[in-house]
Amino acid sequence: MFISTMNEFIDHTLLKPNATSAQIKQLCEEAMDFKFKSVCVNPSHVKLSKEILKNSDVKVCTVIGFPLGANCTKTKCFETELALENGADEFDMVINVGWLKEKLFDDLLSEINELKKIIGDCILKVIVEISLLTDDEIRIMTEIVSKSNADFIKTSTGFSAHGATLEAVKIMKDNISNDKKIKASGGIRDYKTAKSYIDLGVSRLGVSAGIEIMEEFKKQL
Amino acid sequence: MFISTMNEFIDHTLLKPNATSAQIKQLCEEAMDFKFKSVCVNPSHVKLSKEILKNSDVKVCTVIGFPLGANCTKTKCFETELALENGADEFDMVINVGWLKEKLFDDLLSEINELKKIIGDCILKVIVEISLLTDDEIRIMTEIVSKSNADFIKTSTGFSAHGATLEAVKIMKDNISNDKKIKASGGIRDYKTAKSYIDLGVSRLGVSAGIEIMEEFKKQL
Repeated sequence: MFISTMNEFIDHTLLKPNATSAQIKQLCEEAMDFKFKSVCVNPSHVKLSKEILKNSDVKVCTVIGFPLGANCTKTKCFETELALENGADEFDMVINVGWLKEKLFDDLLSEINELKKIIGDCILKVIVEISLLTDDEIRIMTEIVSKSNADFIKTSTGFSAHGATLEAVKIMKDNISNDKKIKASGGIRDYKTAKSYIDLGVSRLGVSAGIEIMEEFKKQL
Repeated sequence: MFISTMNEFIDHTLLKPNATSAQIKQLCEEAMDFKFKSVCVNPSHVKLSKEILKNSDVKVCTVIGFPLGANCTKTKCFETELALENGADEFDMVINVGWLKEKLFDDLLSEINELKKIIGDCILKVIVEISLLTDDEIRIMTEIVSKSNADFIKTSTGFSAHGATLEAVKIMKDNISNDKKIKASGGIRDYKTAKSYIDLGVSRLGVSAGIEIMEEFKKQL
């Protein structure tokens, strides 16, 4: 498939715990230069990112219950409310993977819907951490997200054993419904890999190598 | 140094995001059998752990802003309040490592003190994630924790590039004051390693291999 734009797929991501304000500023400036869809930053960097990006089209994406997802739902809700107040436009939450292992499907669904209720029309992505899941669990989570009010299913935090795989995204693609979208993230470091996910039907890429990917993309145009 | 007890040093730890209630129950039962100091669990497992341990001497330890520490202070406070309500006795918080890189020492100190204010006489441990720090930053954080109202400085989350090192603990030992204690955690998997930290003056060990360590400890008595 020929791709005419690449920038709009990219959540320009810096979630390292030792990231500084200077690095976040640079991330935001790069995102404006390259017209990326969003910057994806930790909650303590939302306010600063919004300040820099307020007059641009670049969205501020943040993470909730990240990266383990083993927080109480109430804490995830609080963190979401606060990030919304601080100016976040998109919210990438991590599911409670233990609940999935225990087949607490209703709890998984309600938590997703509780968070979506807080953010209204803002975008909610549900990180399922595929490196911890069986193929069957990936299928089940795709069905739960399809049934939920969330907007996206997302493969990975980037902080587990491995990130996105084409195999996992294929399972998502085969089981997704209700216009839910897919975000692939973790370990996508070059244009060729990025394109292979887009060819599969992914709508968003969470990458820290956005600039390298754009440079390679421009070369092949 | 001869060690007459080992169990009292151990926070019996299970922080994997895919841990199930059944595994947490087992962790708590093991902790009672071996008379460990505490179980260390994610916030979503505090209530269950307290239920099982309420009539025992085993404390419930949980983690706050874990493992990245890049949450807003307000969220860390909320998570602490909720864990306290749910029965946690000890709280292992992660500092905002970015703040340390930016030399925001006052902010680091106030965040620690805000959390300690919430939990009163309960124990607060401050995780500094040594794998991300220079020796000088380890020294600075040891001084900040010494000045704070926290009870412990703790080396690692177990979710970063590496866990505790003897070198880092030596730096802590050389710079600690005001009766603050040290918890070593991450990568301590056998009795010999555990003993080497205790010989250095560590007061607590965060380990998932508590039972293996106890078996080896008993053999050498």
